[in-house]
Amino acid sequence: MRFDNKYFDQLFNPKSIAVIGASTHTDKVGYALLKNLLDGGFTGKIYPVNPNTNSILGLKAYSSVEQINNNVDLAIIAVDAVRVPDILNQAYKKGIKTFIIITAGFKESTSIGAKVLEEKLVEVVYAYELFVIGPNCLGVINTQPTINMNATFARVAPKKGNIAFVSQSGAIGIHALEYAARQDIGFSKFVTIGNKTAINENDLLNYLIDDEETKVILLYLESFSDGIRFKEIIQSKNQQQLKPIIILKSGRTESGIKAALSHTGALTGEDNIVSQFLDDCGVLRVDSIEELFTTALLIANQPKPKGNKLLVLTNAGGLGIMAMDATKDTSLVAIKLMKPEQDILQKELPNAASTANPVDILGDAGAERYSHTLKTLLDINSFDLLLMICTPQFMTNRAQILNSILDLVAKARKNQITLAAVFPSINEELFTIFDAYDLPNYEFPEQAINAFSNYVRFANYKFEDALVQNTKLINRKYNHLKKLFDKAKHHNQEYLNEVESYSILKEYGVTLAPHYVTKHIGEAISLADKIGYPVVAKIIVKGVLHKFDQGGVILNINTKTELIEAYNRLHESFNSKRVEGVLIQSQIKKGIEFIIGSKFHEGFGHFIMFGLGGTYVEILKDIKLAMSPLTKVKAYELIESIRAKEIMEGYRGIKPINKEALVNLLLKVSNIVNDFPEIESLDLNPVFALENDAIVADARIILKKEVTKK
Amino acid sequence: MRFDNKYFDQLFNPKSIAVIGASTHTDKVGYALLKNLLDGGFTGKIYPVNPNTNSILGLKAYSSVEQINNNVDLAIIAVDAVRVPDILNQAYKKGIKTFIIITAGFKESTSIGAKVLEEKLVEVVYAYELFVIGPNCLGVINTQPTINMNATFARVAPKKGNIAFVSQSGAIGIHALEYAARQDIGFSKFVTIGNKTAINENDLLNYLIDDEETKVILLYLESFSDGIRFKEIIQSKNQQQLKPIIILKSGRTESGIKAALSHTGALTGEDNIVSQFLDDCGVLRVDSIEELFTTALLIANQPKPKGNKLLVLTNAGGLGIMAMDATKDTSLVAIKLMKPEQDILQKELPNAASTANPVDILGDAGAERYSHTLKTLLDINSFDLLLMICTPQFMTNRAQILNSILDLVAKARKNQITLAAVFPSINEELFTIFDAYDLPNYEFPEQAINAFSNYVRFANYKFEDALVQNTKLINRKYNHLKKLFDKAKHHNQEYLNEVESYSILKEYGVTLAPHYVTKHIGEAISLADKIGYPVVAKIIVKGVLHKFDQGGVILNINTKTELIEAYNRLHESFNSKRVEGVLIQSQIKKGIEFIIGSKFHEGFGHFIMFGLGGTYVEILKDIKLAMSPLTKVKAYELIESIRAKEIMEGYRGIKPINKEALVNLLLKVSNIVNDFPEIESLDLNPVFALENDAIVADARIILKKEVTKK
Repeated sequence: MRFDNKYFDQLFNPKSIAVIGASTHTDKVGYALLKNLLDGGFTGKIYPVNPNTNSILGLKAYSSVEQINNNVDLAIIAVDAVRVPDILNQAYKKGIKTFIIITAGFKESTSIGAKVLEEKLVEVVYAYELFVIGPNCLGVINTQPTINMNATFARVAPKKGNIAFVSQSGAIGIHALEYAARQDIGFSKFVTIGNKTAINENDLLNYLIDDEETKVILLYLESFSDGIRFKEIIQSKNQQQLKPIIILKSGRTESGIKAALSHTGALTGEDNIVSQFLDDCGVLRVDSIEELFTTALLIANQPKPKGNKLLVLTNAGGLGIMAMDATKDTSLVAIKLMKPEQDILQKELPNAASTANPVDILGDAGAERYSHTLKTLLDINSFDLLLMICTPQFMTNRAQILNSILDLVAKARKNQITLAAVFPSINEELFTIFDAYDLPNYEFPEQAINAFSNYVRFANYKFEDALVQNTKLINRKYNHLKKLFDKAKHHNQEYLNEVESYSILKEYGVTLAPHYVTKHIGEAISLADKIGYPVVAKIIVKGVLHKFDQGGVILNINTKTELIEAYNRLHESFNSKRVEGVLIQSQIKKGIEFIIGSKFHEGFGHFIMFGLGGTYVEILKDIKLAMSPLTKVKAYELIESIRAKEIMEGYRGIKPINKEALVNLLLKVSNIVNDFPEIESLDLNPVFALENDAIVADARIILKKEVTKK
Repeated sequence: MRFDNKYFDQLFNPKSIAVIGASTHTDKVGYALLKNLLDGGFTGKIYPVNPNTNSILGLKAYSSVEQINNNVDLAIIAVDAVRVPDILNQAYKKGIKTFIIITAGFKESTSIGAKVLEEKLVEVVYAYELFVIGPNCLGVINTQPTINMNATFARVAPKKGNIAFVSQSGAIGIHALEYAARQDIGFSKFVTIGNKTAINENDLLNYLIDDEETKVILLYLESFSDGIRFKEIIQSKNQQQLKPIIILKSGRTESGIKAALSHTGALTGEDNIVSQFLDDCGVLRVDSIEELFTTALLIANQPKPKGNKLLVLTNAGGLGIMAMDATKDTSLVAIKLMKPEQDILQKELPNAASTANPVDILGDAGAERYSHTLKTLLDINSFDLLLMICTPQFMTNRAQILNSILDLVAKARKNQITLAAVFPSINEELFTIFDAYDLPNYEFPEQAINAFSNYVRFANYKFEDALVQNTKLINRKYNHLKKLFDKAKHHNQEYLNEVESYSILKEYGVTLAPHYVTKHIGEAISLADKIGYPVVAKIIVKGVLHKFDQGGVILNINTKTELIEAYNRLHESFNSKRVEGVLIQSQIKKGIEFIIGSKFHEGFGHFIMFGLGGTYVEILKDIKLAMSPLTKVKAYELIESIRAKEIMEGYRGIKPINKEALVNLLLKVSNIVNDFPEIESLDLNPVFALENDAIVADARIILKKEVTKK
């Protein structure tokens, strides 16, 4: 179900709320909900519904929703699970279509009847097309002063801010509220989505991207409701990254990867796919609640980094070094100031000061030294990110220091310098200043550097116009290939063998190692002569997918004699009835071996894989993924992302390879899996990358068990 | 200088302290020092020294140390740097030999005169053999109630605890004090060592390992004063890891590795060497101040893990998953409870509870459910580490829950279960209970899991009796080889070439690929026949170290004709005057290629390197280090530590290799560098590991620029 904004408006800005299951018992959720609404200063009307009392917390109580004479925009339900379907019925009759169902005990529970209850709930929700948050959730908060709605049973209420938080887990929601309160971080909206019966993360994303109160969207998810739609929403609504999205997606450890037929399948873990998917969406993935907020704090308050050049200003050497250490394995680059720049700085500083990077202005630095140095640094302007460290050394007056640089903080913002501070153990007074000037302050240098690094990662996401060069084959060719797939389907084939796979690749213009299939030794010999030695001989036999492992591939055949021997050996090793022939192929001895593949993911679609090939491919696992369809830019990024990328620039007598050829091959693979949704995975292994071309020397295509209809 | 414990006793337990440079000005360090001593309740006598006043903070002030009639155990100096040498002179005459010099402005400063002052200081300190902490430090604290000495100018005083902290940086010291205070972590002793003029980290380590008040030692270091002694102290005094040492060593990013002649040199970064050194010492390295303390908190309070099997008990699914996620890339293993165990658990739990791992006892879990479940889990006893999560869900009474399990916490300790809690956002009441029961509590699951993982790493450090199998060569052989080195030294050779290196390896019983050197093509042909084709031909020529890169190695010579061609080509390519011959070597075509090497480190001695070899060695950098001398156990650990270790178990038609042969080869390398300190680095590349042996097919030995005398 898709709902228009009217419903979201009723959820976040209701003029009236019915709390069904409101309670007089202080230990009940129905009490806490009402109390939070009142304490939060909700600006609309509140109607407690409880048949057993006349008033709760000073409000008139209604025995049922029908008794409420006025209009009700939103109903919050906190009754027993068994009663929920009936309550929805009643409320619907009263004209209510927007709900927050707090009640637990549906599909998340294994208790007897939970399954039945869930079915009943779904039935009612879908029959009436109800807009439902939950069930099994903590509730919803809108901090807008015109509304002041705290419709949760949490103990801590957030202050107003520009961060929206959507959590699948209520407990993580509580944790986040408590952490944010301690760090004095505010929220624009806070939503826990529980079982996601009607409204899921995508619906909220779609809404929050347009929400003017929200500058950054934080998500905690345990599962994606619909990955494809997730991506579509972001691609269509958030192309320019106007609204950063940061996600904590849990479930990183894998309960076990399904036995996979293909290399690509075996080499790609579920969690890597999720990470790649999020990268491709331009959504920043973080690893912990703390990182979620330390990152959000920077992104919500500071301009997007122009680049990755970092400078650190400090009054303590140790903390400066710690900041530098934290840049290890990030994309941040600690710039070194030029000699003339250092000379300018040095003029105003004691001799003992260090003017490289970190710029260490010593433990006795006061307001004047800080502001002087910062001013000079902003004039030098050779960096993109600046970290200011100020430890409370003896007699360091940090309030004075901070106040003396506030103009410069504003100037830095104008120059689009991304700024953060590490003033550890600050008091309320300092805190208020940091807050007022949107200057994020961190306890530890590592936190600030991590936030910087995440922001740079985010800034580097490319939102191209999805200029996919889809060269869908002309009809005649397409139909020809389609028949191959149809035939395979008809025969319940699990895969297309090497020869069949080649015939597809060929139509897409992929360069293949010269090869012929024959059933006669005499022909094999003349074919080998035609191709030129050394050659490879491979058995083509039904039902043998991993022919290499089973001795069906003989390499390094240098002479006619060796070829005859190899030919006979292959036929001796395999059941002759199933043998379809022997493939004689030129053995490529040059270039660098890579592996290229594709893998279909149920939730996110096709992924293209690229990695270092050769003997050790499964052991080194130097492979990376990108989502299909690929663009040229993404294909380049993909080949540049493997650990062994240097090898492509030439190595020990091997000439630099033609990257363009590799990129084109990747794009062709992307097109193939796009054109033929029947493909589960595709393996090109090895691919030989040479100075002028990329040559495929083996291929297989695994088919989906149930062919998806397009 | 080495000092006996009398001096340390005067430092940590002085009966009387002179504060030289004590001040009446509240903004001076000399005031803060005195005030901290008084406020901390120092139990001994305090003598402020200041010629310009009669009393400070109610204490009689002395114009100089000579004026003090009584004995002075310890002098704290906070006067201008220029005055320090004179003050030391005076104090020494008064009989004082133990000092804390707070004053900065010596070698750490680049100000005019600082160098001269440092020299003067060193002169006095060494002439009188003074025991000096500092200069340029924050001071020293001993929290022992019989002493209560806060001899620092820090603003926060730590409470008593069992953690000793030694910091090279004063600012990090302050940061640590503030962080520890917020987390309510106590210290036994706190020492900032500043410029380490007399007393360095090794002296303090040596003392603190024996200190009964200290259970865990924390170090913050920017440099090692003497790595060899550091290791010796730990190996001799702390063999059984009775006192865990945790270190934060900063300076991870490298300003640039010196151009290295050898592979080994190029492949090993300075920071990796530091990490390996610390691992070999059994000292736990962490990355941040926070991790220093989160880890110390666990190690100081909980029993050492028996193994790595982890169980998580939670009332919130989301946090349970987050804990599991955090185990990724650690050595922790999340066990799964057996079906019968799950059945036992399930009996006492609601149907909706999860009994696998995490054991999720649901949001409404109270004291009874927690204690019941924990009791059952301790009876099951199939795990080594247990994390208990309890989020403050609605109506969760966490004090009640915690109180109900305290007996079980004690029982867990008796069973040597390592326990930690994640009760986020707790109040003072809860805190006190956690503290009283030595149960570490963390804000985030990631922190607890990280501490667990560190503790397991620590528990796995092996402290063998350094049973190094040094097979120092019998004299005759040794003398023979020694001549080679002497000759090389005499000729200012930078390295031993392949042939010379082989002659050394041979004496140690290393298997070499069959080879001969010749100067005649006719002999080359007959040698190749003797060895058997295929062969390799390598030029042996003075001054060419990287002969492969310069075309001095021709592989894959299969026939006499090819050999003649290769021989001629080599001679054409190289200046014939410097050519010493051509090495004809059997070309090994089997097995797996590895690289083995050694590298001398100025601070820590020789390291042995092992890694995957072959074409891509520099690109894949799949190499690991271990300190020399190696033991058999360490050598096995070393070969098992590379990423591609699976390859050794057999791979795609390659049979499993003989690890014992590789281990023996590593031990021989360790012996060689031990016997010949002249060696800077040694490269064996490639080494072919086969089913039965490990064969070296190329070798070079780089010599130290200045040969160390043994």
